[in-house]
Amino acid sequence: MAMKRLIIDMDDVIADTTGQFINYYEREYGVLIDRETLHHKEEGEGFPNKEAIMRYLFEPGFFRKIKPYENSIETLEKLNQKYSLYIVSAAMQFPQSLSEKQEWLQEHCPFLTWKQIVFCGSKAVVHGDYMIDDMIYNLETFNGEKFIYTAPHNMQYDLYPRLNNWREVAANFL
Amino acid sequence: MAMKRLIIDMDDVIADTTGQFINYYEREYGVLIDRETLHHKEEGEGFPNKEAIMRYLFEPGFFRKIKPYENSIETLEKLNQKYSLYIVSAAMQFPQSLSEKQEWLQEHCPFLTWKQIVFCGSKAVVHGDYMIDDMIYNLETFNGEKFIYTAPHNMQYDLYPRLNNWREVAANFL
Repeated sequence: MAMKRLIIDMDDVIADTTGQFINYYEREYGVLIDRETLHHKEEGEGFPNKEAIMRYLFEPGFFRKIKPYENSIETLEKLNQKYSLYIVSAAMQFPQSLSEKQEWLQEHCPFLTWKQIVFCGSKAVVHGDYMIDDMIYNLETFNGEKFIYTAPHNMQYDLYPRLNNWREVAANFL
Repeated sequence: MAMKRLIIDMDDVIADTTGQFINYYEREYGVLIDRETLHHKEEGEGFPNKEAIMRYLFEPGFFRKIKPYENSIETLEKLNQKYSLYIVSAAMQFPQSLSEKQEWLQEHCPFLTWKQIVFCGSKAVVHGDYMIDDMIYNLETFNGEKFIYTAPHNMQYDLYPRLNNWREVAANFL
């Protein structure tokens, strides 16, 4: 039997992009934003100067040094044995992120091959059996079964089964 | 009615990658390869030193300066009005090609947005209504209607309807 195809997002799913926003914001403004104050707000909205968040996304180095979420890498390595796994990231909006994301995956996920990586603009062209993503607009167009990975900016939505952390991903898929 | 989704490859479909191989080969070895001698041979096989071809694919600048095929750009601009058009390139094998291909598309196809670009490894995750590609292995896994764009390395195959040049693409899709 062919393995089921599992599509997983990078930012705020595998990688703690919100944590990187908080780091960059503190470095620039000297204000440490409490992660909980971002809950239920659209991306960037919880920061006093929300223009900064969009600016960081275009800053060289931003994506390269994001920390993986706890248990994400070891779970991915196990998922890679059981599923036809693809990492699909909407990287095209941020040109400098392409090489940084590729290097990030090489560093953190050496068990993946280049065949399993997709950098796109819209995810509407991607199909598979399961998708795990933090963005409603990515899940909306997907043909298979959809799971929302909890992030501060999606807590106000109740549209898809929720995965709150990588232990839950493991429990659900392994 | 929703527009049909048309998936088009870059190398040896929009861009004359074979011509760039010939240029690079002449520059290094002083031998101008006649394009016709490459017909019906797998990619690289028609060059006396075929290892050089794989090497060029990893050389910075190789992808950035490839010439577009005659009529490709103007036809793409028209297709972009009539179809939900995506440029899908298997760029992931050649890390340095990611930014070069993105810059190439910005230069030659300013009418496209970042949402319409996909850089992947395997194209098996991409779905749509029509695909135009020069590689059998990309067409094989596609769910929709498949067209092979004629290149020296695919002339030995008779598996899919053939598009020999961009006038034929225009006649078929516009």
